[in-house]
Amino acid sequence: MRQTLSDFLDRPSTRYAIMGVILFNAVILGLETSETVMNTAGGLIILLDTACLAIFVAELAAKLYARGLSFFRNAWNVFDFLVVGIALVPATGGLSVLRALRILRLLRVISVAPTLRRVVEGFISALPGMASVFLLMGVIFYIAAVISTKLFAPTFPEWFGTLGRSLYTLFQVMTLESWSMGIVRPVMEVHPEAWMFFVPFILITTFAVVNLVVGLIVNSMQDAHAEETNAATDTYRDEVIQRLAAIEERLAERD
Amino acid sequence: MRQTLSDFLDRPSTRYAIMGVILFNAVILGLETSETVMNTAGGLIILLDTACLAIFVAELAAKLYARGLSFFRNAWNVFDFLVVGIALVPATGGLSVLRALRILRLLRVISVAPTLRRVVEGFISALPGMASVFLLMGVIFYIAAVISTKLFAPTFPEWFGTLGRSLYTLFQVMTLESWSMGIVRPVMEVHPEAWMFFVPFILITTFAVVNLVVGLIVNSMQDAHAEETNAATDTYRDEVIQRLAAIEERLAERD
Amino acid sequence: MRQTLSDFLDRPSTRYAIMGVILFNAVILGLETSETVMNTAGGLIILLDTACLAIFVAELAAKLYARGLSFFRNAWNVFDFLVVGIALVPATGGLSVLRALRILRLLRVISVAPTLRRVVEGFISALPGMASVFLLMGVIFYIAAVISTKLFAPTFPEWFGTLGRSLYTLFQVMTLESWSMGIVRPVMEVHPEAWMFFVPFILITTFAVVNLVVGLIVNSMQDAHAEETNAATDTYRDEVIQRLAAIEERLAERD
Amino acid sequence: MRQTLSDFLDRPSTRYAIMGVILFNAVILGLETSETVMNTAGGLIILLDTACLAIFVAELAAKLYARGLSFFRNAWNVFDFLVVGIALVPATGGLSVLRALRILRLLRVISVAPTLRRVVEGFISALPGMASVFLLMGVIFYIAAVISTKLFAPTFPEWFGTLGRSLYTLFQVMTLESWSMGIVRPVMEVHPEAWMFFVPFILITTFAVVNLVVGLIVNSMQDAHAEETNAATDTYRDEVIQRLAAIEERLAERD
Repeated sequence: MRQTLSDFLDRPSTRYAIMGVILFNAVILGLETSETVMNTAGGLIILLDTACLAIFVAELAAKLYARGLSFFRNAWNVFDFLVVGIALVPATGGLSVLRALRILRLLRVISVAPTLRRVVEGFISALPGMASVFLLMGVIFYIAAVISTKLFAPTFPEWFGTLGRSLYTLFQVMTLESWSMGIVRPVMEVHPEAWMFFVPFILITTFAVVNLVVGLIVNSMQDAHAEETNAATDTYRDEVIQRLAAIEERLAERD
Repeated sequence: MRQTLSDFLDRPSTRYAIMGVILFNAVILGLETSETVMNTAGGLIILLDTACLAIFVAELAAKLYARGLSFFRNAWNVFDFLVVGIALVPATGGLSVLRALRILRLLRVISVAPTLRRVVEGFISALPGMASVFLLMGVIFYIAAVISTKLFAPTFPEWFGTLGRSLYTLFQVMTLESWSMGIVRPVMEVHPEAWMFFVPFILITTFAVVNLVVGLIVNSMQDAHAEETNAATDTYRDEVIQRLAAIEERLAERD
Repeated sequence: MRQTLSDFLDRPSTRYAIMGVILFNAVILGLETSETVMNTAGGLIILLDTACLAIFVAELAAKLYARGLSFFRNAWNVFDFLVVGIALVPATGGLSVLRALRILRLLRVISVAPTLRRVVEGFISALPGMASVFLLMGVIFYIAAVISTKLFAPTFPEWFGTLGRSLYTLFQVMTLESWSMGIVRPVMEVHPEAWMFFVPFILITTFAVVNLVVGLIVNSMQDAHAEETNAATDTYRDEVIQRLAAIEERLAERD
Repeated sequence: MRQTLSDFLDRPSTRYAIMGVILFNAVILGLETSETVMNTAGGLIILLDTACLAIFVAELAAKLYARGLSFFRNAWNVFDFLVVGIALVPATGGLSVLRALRILRLLRVISVAPTLRRVVEGFISALPGMASVFLLMGVIFYIAAVISTKLFAPTFPEWFGTLGRSLYTLFQVMTLESWSMGIVRPVMEVHPEAWMFFVPFILITTFAVVNLVVGLIVNSMQDAHAEETNAATDTYRDEVIQRLAAIEERLAERD
């Protein structure tokens, strides 16, 4: 019974059907944002959304039954579980934002479509190599946030009033968005030396980001390089070594 | 007859003449944007433009006759056909924007000049490799647009009123243009937690764009690498293997 | 005695303890930015900060005693010395900004954690290769600042009144922040030809920055490439040469 | 006589002296931008500047005499000639901007310092490879400028009134500076479909710029790669071929 269910779930046609339901559900949730559509066919939309949700729940329940607890060993299954689970949390009061998050279900296309899955897995596999630079960025941001809060909190509470606000403002400065006309020039009117803090901050964080990108490029290149050349090179080298060994053997035989 | 026409069209001098007409037409259409020029010599300008158009139509008609339906098998011919065809659509009412699009004819220099053609073909050949990342970006944008429309449509109808507006605003945020001072800070005054949506959105889309660029670099590098080294390496390897084989044979013969 | 102290300081457990104090101190200094925390537990915070500082001073004094003057030969030790020393300068009057800089102590995590240390050393080792481009950027900025001060100081004293202000404004323009709507369009209303100065400035500095990044990528790639391939390739090549030499010798022996 | 002069000019000490004069002159011209300095020591500054200019003119005249017309065959000499010549053009009326351009003399450090010279020569040598992409960008900009002038000139004369203004605005849009909040959103209030023009324009020009950078990286990498690996590889390959030839010869001798 379990095996039959597992086979049925693994069949390509089942996967395509689920993908179809995901895309159909995405369209439904997109239509839900339109007021005119909701006024004329709101009931139908909600009904169809509930139907899609029922299919997802049924699919996941079947998977859970078929695979048992090993279901949770696959990260993509956990991902599907969470993304579908959002819709089942009662969305009342402060949690009404969860209603908007139901569209995250569309992310299931990633776990279903192998191409997208590979891209995301590629993204995630690039992260550990960047961990130490991220850590360093964290240290720099924390230091800069403490300094700017200490210096500018009394005069610019809106931007640097708390550690959190300073972190947000520094993130904005790092992205270079309105850093000068919006933030630093007004600050410099009160603290004329403020550029001595912000200009080095921009140079350092930009340099760190550039190093992140350079690291990504070098890693991707090495992976690509290793895959590509080694096959041809290895067969060539093996042949050279074998032929040299054969010549040596022949010479040894004759002695 | 068809063959003579085809030969005539393929002659370099014909190609240069057509290129000259294209550039002359570009100048004419540029002059058309100047009010002073149109007031003093408007009739002449329109006459010359019509003359250029007539030449293009004649050239395309000749090509069509010479090549028959195989004319449409070459994508660049279809491109020329569309770009010239724009001017023949009657430009009235809502279609008056088509008059402005007549300058697209200048794009024909790309199909005529081999250097530009190669650059554009290089661009287009890079696109399929980026298809899955583009698809992923599409999924991310659609999800983000649905969420932001649901959350911010009532309070910021100008930016997030409909799915379309949200997509435009999110594109602006991705390009980092006024994302904080222009969009997120005003939104945060009503929804203080809005940064929890926008900051991850920026990080994810920026990371995806960086990965697109990294992919482009790695691909170009591999193409360049493959072209360059393999020629010399292959002849060297072949020579080594052949000589080793010859030595073995000699030793074998003597046994 | 000196040797015992040196061994104690080099023990991993001592290093972890110091790292713990650094992180604890960072949290303390972070809490110090919150007014509510300072109002309720200000005395405790200041006490704990002083305790952390005492530990750092004791650690550095011990290191200084254990190593003698060779302590200052290691750049990281000098770095630790300066970063801790900031807190000991009496912070009064114009130097009150030094109080805010005490958080720079958190930078000690870099000298203590080997991973972060390697990242920063990587960053610094990349700088010399970029020295000549930096020098060139300096020349370009100085020239552009003198020209813009001469041309725009009377009409836009706020942005170009002195060499320093011009340098700051040009840095802003190079980062593309509000360069057109914020700076160049207003300037062009008075000096309509100003774009002839700013557009080439943007193109040249952007091109220089791109070249810096390209240089970084090429350098990192070469380092990575050299490390990776040479090991395998060298042993292979040595083997081929040795075997060929052995065959020759055998043949020579027999003659 | 000519030879003596030529030898004198080529001596390192002469080159260092000239470099010193250039840097001194740069400082002088920098001081000239300060009103306080000019009020207290304006006469001295102008005198010293004239003295520097006299030295440059004397040096160039000597070089011209020593080398004859072959002086102009070296691009750097022509560069020095123009940069110094600017100061000799009478700076009156509309040409008063030339006074500000005298600081361009500082660019002579590039022609005197070999390191900077190599960087600039590297930059310039990268340009021809990018010529076709630049040409394509030119075509795209011209087309976009004609279209935007035709469509938006009547409603937004400030931004799109003439071809020149449109080109400037489109350049601003390409750099992503205030493209949405500053330009496209106001335009969309009158022409709601304007995003159909601007968003593709941004995507295409950004993609072209990315391709320029990718091309630069691939080229630099190939140059670096070619320099580096071929030396070791070539000597190895030569040795393999020679040893194989020697073995073959020995075998042939014995037959």
